[in-house]
Amino acid sequence: MLAERAGADDLLDRMARRAEAVTQRLDALLPPADGPRGRVVAAMRDSALSGGKRLRPFLTIECAALFDVAPEQALDCAAAIEMMHCYSLIHDDLPAMDDSDLRRGRPTVHKSFDEATAILAGDGLLTEAFAVLADPRCHPDPDVRVALIAGLAAASGAAGMVGGQMIDLSPERANLDLDGITRLQSLKTGALITFSCDAGAILGGADAAARSALQTYARDLGLAFQIVDDLLDSESTPEELGKPTGQDDAAGKATFLGLLGAEAARTKAQELVMRACAQLEIFGKKAEVLKGTAQFVVERRS
Amino acid sequence: MLAERAGADDLLDRMARRAEAVTQRLDALLPPADGPRGRVVAAMRDSALSGGKRLRPFLTIECAALFDVAPEQALDCAAAIEMMHCYSLIHDDLPAMDDSDLRRGRPTVHKSFDEATAILAGDGLLTEAFAVLADPRCHPDPDVRVALIAGLAAASGAAGMVGGQMIDLSPERANLDLDGITRLQSLKTGALITFSCDAGAILGGADAAARSALQTYARDLGLAFQIVDDLLDSESTPEELGKPTGQDDAAGKATFLGLLGAEAARTKAQELVMRACAQLEIFGKKAEVLKGTAQFVVERRS
Repeated sequence: MLAERAGADDLLDRMARRAEAVTQRLDALLPPADGPRGRVVAAMRDSALSGGKRLRPFLTIECAALFDVAPEQALDCAAAIEMMHCYSLIHDDLPAMDDSDLRRGRPTVHKSFDEATAILAGDGLLTEAFAVLADPRCHPDPDVRVALIAGLAAASGAAGMVGGQMIDLSPERANLDLDGITRLQSLKTGALITFSCDAGAILGGADAAARSALQTYARDLGLAFQIVDDLLDSESTPEELGKPTGQDDAAGKATFLGLLGAEAARTKAQELVMRACAQLEIFGKKAEVLKGTAQFVVERRS
Repeated sequence: MLAERAGADDLLDRMARRAEAVTQRLDALLPPADGPRGRVVAAMRDSALSGGKRLRPFLTIECAALFDVAPEQALDCAAAIEMMHCYSLIHDDLPAMDDSDLRRGRPTVHKSFDEATAILAGDGLLTEAFAVLADPRCHPDPDVRVALIAGLAAASGAAGMVGGQMIDLSPERANLDLDGITRLQSLKTGALITFSCDAGAILGGADAAARSALQTYARDLGLAFQIVDDLLDSESTPEELGKPTGQDDAAGKATFLGLLGAEAARTKAQELVMRACAQLEIFGKKAEVLKGTAQFVVERRS
């Protein structure tokens, strides 16, 4: 389907170019893995430089572009958000959490290194994300930098990602209804996706209406992303996804797919994407990339 | 010895009052432990509100006082630093790290809760520390807030605390010489102690000379603190210290005590404290509390 859309190839090219720029910036921002503490830095680099779609930094760069912020001026903020995402993957994969051996088609950090190093590498990336945002190279205005830091902390802490992971591990997790799963997703993955868009708006000095529109776009996009994740998890092999499949089912966790069925889940994801795109009308032609991104999210195969 | 010093009781009273204020502020800053994510917040609160000497926030408040910053104006920054310290204790105590069951006389977080909750609670406190510093209630000037955030991130990440813990877990750890242990300590515990003092100077708008003097004071103080930790570890029971003893010895780790012997270690700690106090001469009578604190650090029994 994606190939039928005009501009879909352009979008994939654009995502690949942005992803490469983010990887290069992460490489420059992270210290070299030498000296006696080199092992933890090597693990941080292993996680942060191992690829992935780089969806979150892409959203930051493209949302900033709505307000005429050049991609390179959004790159440090985008890299900081990707560091935060990578820390969450490392910790979520730990034996005490989801106990996953495979991530992005490679052994997880606690498999390549060891558990202690993986915990510390996550801690290091989490901390470094704030260091990057606090640096004047991220943005010259300290008011902008503290707004980004406050937003990232709110999206990532107990009121966001950490809280979502706690719910995901709770005994109540198995029996969540649709509202419960929606709330879980909004914390565990939605909050950081929403902040990725909001960060672009903050960098661009967006007004309240524009910020609000982007936040609503991001919330619908994040929910669609999770529904498609459930579908891909049931329809793909670990080789295709680069990570284990069927873990939620095996753990007896309720999913969008399980509660809705495949057809209704796919319809809901598509509706969410249409709703997300409708939010972007106020930006006119400038929003074509973000509309395409929303469509990509539901049509992706990994 | 401490009781012989004029004003020693005053100092202990002052530390107790400051510790109580820090605990109250932590209680107010941390969210209530309710709702489905309540478990991770309960674990964060369990760690942050369980007492301890609160040495780091005390240093922040007293260093800020040198520049006429009122204690309550340094309290949020002090609480953020204590959150960072508590996160490091939770993660250091994990089975994959030091595997400790006892901390501050109580079961460690992974014992009271479970390993996943302990990892998440550490992540949550680490993240919340930056949220507190980014909030205007911490300081009205965003330049001051980003300076605090940059300093805390540098002290806590791979170039500081996280790097130090990595070295502490490395195979080379067993055979470190005096320089190696000094470097390990300067990262693992020294960097955050130094930042605790520097944060007070930043809050107070200190000039370069004053900041440099306090940093040197803090480095000597931090090293003395670690040497005394080694001595207490060998001379005390777990009941007296509220944490396991003899773990470094059992793990075959080199210590200041092992390399220097008890008498030379004690002499070195005392020399470091005298050197630390000499740095404070530029502050005149105002520095009496910080001088007393240095003396307290070497004379403490827990």
